[in-house]
Amino acid sequence: MENTKSEKPWGGRFEQATAASVEAFTESISYDKRLYRYDIEGSKAHAAMLAANKLLSQDELTSIVDGLSAIEARIEEGTFSFKSELEDIHMNIEHALIGAIGPAGAKLHSARSRNDQIALDLRLYLRDQCDRLMALLDDARRAFVVLARKYMGKVMPGYTHLQRAQPVLIAHHMMAYYEMFGRDKERIADCRKRINILPLGTAAMAGTGLPIDREMVAELLHFDAVTANSMDTSGDRDFAIEFVSCCTMIQLHLSRLSEELVIWSSQEFSFVQIADKFCTGSSIMPQKKNPDIPELIRGKSGRVVGSLMSLITLMKGLPLTYNRDLQEDKEPVFDAVDTVSASLAIMAEMLGNLEFNTERMEDATKTGFITATDLADYLVLHDVPFRDAHGIVGRAVASCIEKGCELTDLSLEEMREFSPIIDKTVFAVLSVEGSVNSRKSIGGTASLRVEEAVRTAEKHMGIGE
Amino acid sequence: MENTKSEKPWGGRFEQATAASVEAFTESISYDKRLYRYDIEGSKAHAAMLAANKLLSQDELTSIVDGLSAIEARIEEGTFSFKSELEDIHMNIEHALIGAIGPAGAKLHSARSRNDQIALDLRLYLRDQCDRLMALLDDARRAFVVLARKYMGKVMPGYTHLQRAQPVLIAHHMMAYYEMFGRDKERIADCRKRINILPLGTAAMAGTGLPIDREMVAELLHFDAVTANSMDTSGDRDFAIEFVSCCTMIQLHLSRLSEELVIWSSQEFSFVQIADKFCTGSSIMPQKKNPDIPELIRGKSGRVVGSLMSLITLMKGLPLTYNRDLQEDKEPVFDAVDTVSASLAIMAEMLGNLEFNTERMEDATKTGFITATDLADYLVLHDVPFRDAHGIVGRAVASCIEKGCELTDLSLEEMREFSPIIDKTVFAVLSVEGSVNSRKSIGGTASLRVEEAVRTAEKHMGIGE
Amino acid sequence: MENTKSEKPWGGRFEQATAASVEAFTESISYDKRLYRYDIEGSKAHAAMLAANKLLSQDELTSIVDGLSAIEARIEEGTFSFKSELEDIHMNIEHALIGAIGPAGAKLHSARSRNDQIALDLRLYLRDQCDRLMALLDDARRAFVVLARKYMGKVMPGYTHLQRAQPVLIAHHMMAYYEMFGRDKERIADCRKRINILPLGTAAMAGTGLPIDREMVAELLHFDAVTANSMDTSGDRDFAIEFVSCCTMIQLHLSRLSEELVIWSSQEFSFVQIADKFCTGSSIMPQKKNPDIPELIRGKSGRVVGSLMSLITLMKGLPLTYNRDLQEDKEPVFDAVDTVSASLAIMAEMLGNLEFNTERMEDATKTGFITATDLADYLVLHDVPFRDAHGIVGRAVASCIEKGCELTDLSLEEMREFSPIIDKTVFAVLSVEGSVNSRKSIGGTASLRVEEAVRTAEKHMGIGE
Amino acid sequence: MENTKSEKPWGGRFEQATAASVEAFTESISYDKRLYRYDIEGSKAHAAMLAANKLLSQDELTSIVDGLSAIEARIEEGTFSFKSELEDIHMNIEHALIGAIGPAGAKLHSARSRNDQIALDLRLYLRDQCDRLMALLDDARRAFVVLARKYMGKVMPGYTHLQRAQPVLIAHHMMAYYEMFGRDKERIADCRKRINILPLGTAAMAGTGLPIDREMVAELLHFDAVTANSMDTSGDRDFAIEFVSCCTMIQLHLSRLSEELVIWSSQEFSFVQIADKFCTGSSIMPQKKNPDIPELIRGKSGRVVGSLMSLITLMKGLPLTYNRDLQEDKEPVFDAVDTVSASLAIMAEMLGNLEFNTERMEDATKTGFITATDLADYLVLHDVPFRDAHGIVGRAVASCIEKGCELTDLSLEEMREFSPIIDKTVFAVLSVEGSVNSRKSIGGTASLRVEEAVRTAEKHMGIGE
Repeated sequence: MENTKSEKPWGGRFEQATAASVEAFTESISYDKRLYRYDIEGSKAHAAMLAANKLLSQDELTSIVDGLSAIEARIEEGTFSFKSELEDIHMNIEHALIGAIGPAGAKLHSARSRNDQIALDLRLYLRDQCDRLMALLDDARRAFVVLARKYMGKVMPGYTHLQRAQPVLIAHHMMAYYEMFGRDKERIADCRKRINILPLGTAAMAGTGLPIDREMVAELLHFDAVTANSMDTSGDRDFAIEFVSCCTMIQLHLSRLSEELVIWSSQEFSFVQIADKFCTGSSIMPQKKNPDIPELIRGKSGRVVGSLMSLITLMKGLPLTYNRDLQEDKEPVFDAVDTVSASLAIMAEMLGNLEFNTERMEDATKTGFITATDLADYLVLHDVPFRDAHGIVGRAVASCIEKGCELTDLSLEEMREFSPIIDKTVFAVLSVEGSVNSRKSIGGTASLRVEEAVRTAEKHMGIGE
Repeated sequence: MENTKSEKPWGGRFEQATAASVEAFTESISYDKRLYRYDIEGSKAHAAMLAANKLLSQDELTSIVDGLSAIEARIEEGTFSFKSELEDIHMNIEHALIGAIGPAGAKLHSARSRNDQIALDLRLYLRDQCDRLMALLDDARRAFVVLARKYMGKVMPGYTHLQRAQPVLIAHHMMAYYEMFGRDKERIADCRKRINILPLGTAAMAGTGLPIDREMVAELLHFDAVTANSMDTSGDRDFAIEFVSCCTMIQLHLSRLSEELVIWSSQEFSFVQIADKFCTGSSIMPQKKNPDIPELIRGKSGRVVGSLMSLITLMKGLPLTYNRDLQEDKEPVFDAVDTVSASLAIMAEMLGNLEFNTERMEDATKTGFITATDLADYLVLHDVPFRDAHGIVGRAVASCIEKGCELTDLSLEEMREFSPIIDKTVFAVLSVEGSVNSRKSIGGTASLRVEEAVRTAEKHMGIGE
Repeated sequence: MENTKSEKPWGGRFEQATAASVEAFTESISYDKRLYRYDIEGSKAHAAMLAANKLLSQDELTSIVDGLSAIEARIEEGTFSFKSELEDIHMNIEHALIGAIGPAGAKLHSARSRNDQIALDLRLYLRDQCDRLMALLDDARRAFVVLARKYMGKVMPGYTHLQRAQPVLIAHHMMAYYEMFGRDKERIADCRKRINILPLGTAAMAGTGLPIDREMVAELLHFDAVTANSMDTSGDRDFAIEFVSCCTMIQLHLSRLSEELVIWSSQEFSFVQIADKFCTGSSIMPQKKNPDIPELIRGKSGRVVGSLMSLITLMKGLPLTYNRDLQEDKEPVFDAVDTVSASLAIMAEMLGNLEFNTERMEDATKTGFITATDLADYLVLHDVPFRDAHGIVGRAVASCIEKGCELTDLSLEEMREFSPIIDKTVFAVLSVEGSVNSRKSIGGTASLRVEEAVRTAEKHMGIGE
Repeated sequence: MENTKSEKPWGGRFEQATAASVEAFTESISYDKRLYRYDIEGSKAHAAMLAANKLLSQDELTSIVDGLSAIEARIEEGTFSFKSELEDIHMNIEHALIGAIGPAGAKLHSARSRNDQIALDLRLYLRDQCDRLMALLDDARRAFVVLARKYMGKVMPGYTHLQRAQPVLIAHHMMAYYEMFGRDKERIADCRKRINILPLGTAAMAGTGLPIDREMVAELLHFDAVTANSMDTSGDRDFAIEFVSCCTMIQLHLSRLSEELVIWSSQEFSFVQIADKFCTGSSIMPQKKNPDIPELIRGKSGRVVGSLMSLITLMKGLPLTYNRDLQEDKEPVFDAVDTVSASLAIMAEMLGNLEFNTERMEDATKTGFITATDLADYLVLHDVPFRDAHGIVGRAVASCIEKGCELTDLSLEEMREFSPIIDKTVFAVLSVEGSVNSRKSIGGTASLRVEEAVRTAEKHMGIGE
């Protein structure tokens, strides 16, 4: 029966039409339509190159470019109807183009394959996402700098093992995240270099015999270079994995910050107040105000890691060039982009709606022997070997615990029982302010260091100019 | 300004309305609406219990049940409008109910929380999915049995390390997958036991002081038992992780089968022909017919693993009871369900559209010294220690390789150079048929064993009755 | 040159000796020697079966069994020298056996392959590990019951979102973990069923023509059944993946408990005191006492998940039967076993060395409007629809926050401003004790429920008999 | 009892000695001893800086440096005894130093913490590993170039979907891997930039009040810069995750190559012969020669992914600065380094021991309509729109399949039935050689392009100079 024959663009040799279940299982248009803008941009550049190489006439070129622009407009208006029997964004657009402009449209696919196109679309898309993520990272970094400035000079306990360790400036803690997200930006910039290479022109996977000019296309699309080996190019998704690795690291950083915000929001810590409008309540407990945003962001780390693992598993053991498995590359990439972008944006917004309870934080630096290291360093400066100094202070602390007091509660005599080297200059060392400001090593929490770091960052981020 | 105050159902204590960006970030209705049927089913049972315990009047109960049925009907018709400012499926339905029936609707949430509800909805949903997956596994298993029967008696090379190892029956190979998917079914049945326990009734997480009857609800909803500790229950997602682990195993099994189908479809193997309607072509190479379905299924293993890793990462290090992170549990579960169901269904369908090239497969058993083990076993039966027998045959094989012939091409004299124990009875042993049928150990490839296995399976699966 | 020829047991057909780098890369003896006991046990049963089927004489059997026992003794004494050129535990033992007892040893490998053996060894090993883990889980569960009994009646805040939610009994919180680890035990028991099936007898992968009796071997080795399809069996590692999935879940549970212990150990919470001997100090800060054990256990969740991911990735896309990739199955399994066992054991030990600061925990229940839900439930019992009740209490809480007081600080008049239904019976409802004991729903935190749960658990675990 | 008190270097405040089980659980010396060389190198630089800043005398410095050198020598000789009660490599070395040189040794730990040290050691170690991996990547790349040169001009089928697609040069296929491993090298070089920043000097995590000079230490240890924020630095393991991400990508690339080698080694393909010394045999099937090396490498991809997943899970949700969880960072890193290094090395070696069966490969290009795209391109050059050309060729192929012939078997007349545009020049286009050499686009498989690529690579890799 004639009408059971395939009517697909590739169907020439096929005896049977595709089963409906197969169409549903194999289509990608439901998610790759997101790439329409890049697909059209790429097709325009391809057409311009074909025309420059006489594979299209100027009229055909004009007709194709106009036709593509019209399709783009319809998609943006929402009047374009995507068809799953046309499988993917490439075929949907090409089919509409041929419908609109006739035979010239049927010439557009010369010297390229869909594998070619998707590699191009994905790189164009991810190049944009790199730029967008770098901007979002900067928004978040700016928020940390603003908080650092706002709370400059205010102290809090620094923790190791979630135990109070040494007093630090709140601003110093904020600037730690500034650094972390700065590294994320660097990593994305490095990834972008490897994304920004033109894949188009590998054709099926061996290159093409038609007279094309890949370098012209690269220039039109602002790529830095063209890929060097067609077989490698057609099956390469390294750039997608690397991009999602970068996303994973960002979301891990966000999960650490979120964990801190959740802990700081507990009644026991009460270090931070998240504005009502960034919290939600409980359907059953009328008194609750929950730090939902940081919890969700922390939870979403699972999602981004999951996308990374998807892509890695996908690529394991695939022979070279294109295998249909590769179609599964897009959704994890899209989900990682969406998750990380949304998380960064809402986090930056929420950081602008945080209040630190500075009194409470300062109070927390007054107990827990938080300046014990300063006492040890004091002894070292009086030529006590560090190991001995550590032991002396350890015994002093144990004695205080027994007495239920702090080191600062000891009299000079009591102190001198632990080491006769101690004299009254010790008391400056044991103060929180003295402790903080003593840590002048590069990267340390002393006010002058932190002020320096914040000022540099403000300048770098264009704050307060 | 009054109108900035929260108007959320939980908003009593909130000064500020939720930010729009926060609403967008925290809503789950876009995906948890899929659970509407379970949410309504659970609410009806909850209402019945509340009425039995005088927390609702009979009229209120009737009004609630009817109201919920009406909402269900509207959702199924597509006329219900889900609102993201109402956050989730629970609030959307409750809000509509109150709108429809007034104060009685506002009583429905007595003695339960949304954490309670989502745990219930998810268990009801997954219980259904267990049943559905078990049916789909049986469909696939049935397809293997049908293939085994169809090709009963036909031989192919069995491989280890993708090297021809010993001749086997095609039917034996098919029945290997029957076994694998049988284990998957068992695992899901075990998982279902742990899913099928009623969580509802933990309320916020400490249980409730209102007079409720959890066992009545369990009975109404066909749960086998009620959970034993409210704090454990409200933060427990073990059942979801276990379910997705089972899904991962199924998809791994499918990936192995797919790999074989891809390899067998290569021109070099040409063992199998997948019907046109299960293949697609190339946009650039007119001659191509690609095994897209198995490739996509193989690729989708990444997706299911990704979901599993998402859930595991999500749960890592969460303190007890409900944390908002848990909202991220649903999408990986849904995606795993969709992926595995669709993959199993299309695979079963495709298996019914496979043709094995039995001649080609049989030919492939005639080379590669595929009955060398039989020669070794022959020697063992003549009391040559196995290690020595192995060495003798190894040397015979090396000699054949040098000569460019097969073991069956050697004359008796040539054979006896390797071991004088060999006599003319050896030739029966070296035949493919003799080799296959000799392997009568339980689980072996001898025809009688495989016939036995297929017959048992047919009976079990209700085939040919 | 003759001596470059392979001298491997399988080397008959090989012209070249294995490269040294290849030997180093492919050996597994450095880690699979851990399985020696199971390998020997399996070989003894195999030999007994061979003898019963006349493939060994009684003398040969005796000689093999004695030889294997002697080898086992030498391994246990540490005098056995493992050789990496003999690749794996199977060849090392067989080689030593042949060296010790001569030709009879060379007969042992009849009707089996190394793939056969490793599948057997791994199942025997994991069956033991299942039993061991179930015992360790019970040790941990016992520790929770003991803590529950010790602190019976003492209250603490129950948290959701790490915000104080409702008061609960410490014992109730402990029993939540009792339940979680109970589920882990069930899962392992289910996994054990699928492990405890004899794989031996698949030979190369097609079964064997030698007269063997798999059911006899199963009986000797206490397996419940024999596997049904040789091709499935030889490449099946489902049981290993399922086992490591169970391990992952245990370690996730441990990570949640660890997170709570770390948070509770902070100075801000100060809920718990971990004995000195379970903590370590800081090399630089003399005052520090760190909750190292829970931190390490939490960190080790990464390791177990990593092992699971390794195994899953390993199996993705492998064609049926044995592929050498499978050699990589052992180290992740061993690491998961070691990590989970050690973590469970030290956790159980540490739980016995915890002190809760019950005063501090009780104090924490007195603020944060922790009985607000009780007030809402009170209104519900007075026929206020729950949604309205929730709103009333929400406004009361907001008003208290403004005034800086708790609900219990309001006078009856002030209360009645929010709802005239309230009368003096409300005060009992707002007390922590009243709140806790009201929650009598099954699984709730009321003393009578928790006492019931603890008593049942004590009985079940054989405590205090 | 005095002797139960802690005798740990940090034990001053501790009342109880560490439990033996805790020591066993928390020690890291069993694996971090691998870092001894870096620990000593770091300590020497630290000591030099302390001396420059008067915290050590010149004599003390000399004594420390000599003492450390002596310890290093003992470790390398194997005469140093590592003690697990001293926990880690830092304490083991410091303890031995104090034992050897007395009080001066006890001064070495001034102004640093162990967190500081391990961050330093790990960065020094990974910097070296980056250099080593880049060299190993170059070895592998060199091997591909050598193979490309050796087989220059020889053809094989290029595959998509494991279906023959278009003829390519073997050399072109080899050069695809050259490119892939080239990207890996770039990624490691980028990662190295972020590794090569000095962390030492953060002390506990807030910086130090002792007069130190971090830039001097950076210079002594050849770091490019010093880290900018002490709190960030002490808990930062980004560099380790990024490094293991790079390793994962390398192993994925290796898994793809391995998959191809396994498939090519099958009797059905018979494209490649791996030298005997790189294969192993079967313990049961005397004829087998298995591609163990590529199978193991493919399997080891699971292991590297597992390490990545471990590290990611580890970091999820950790509050800032040091948490003991971080101790779990080392083993996954070490395992990834070992696995990837060994896999790259053996792969490079094996590539030097491969023979391609060029006749067989060439034969495989002669069927399967492998030049069908060339016919379509031919039509395009005759101004047939590509879509129409694709359809014409598709129908021609379908007709050949029906007749059981190839395109090249059609007469000109038969061809012209499909399109009258075709003339006798078509036959050059349909030849394998013509097809290959037509693909002259940049990155294409035409001989002149591949020769160009190989020549450039030879130059770059210093081959044949």
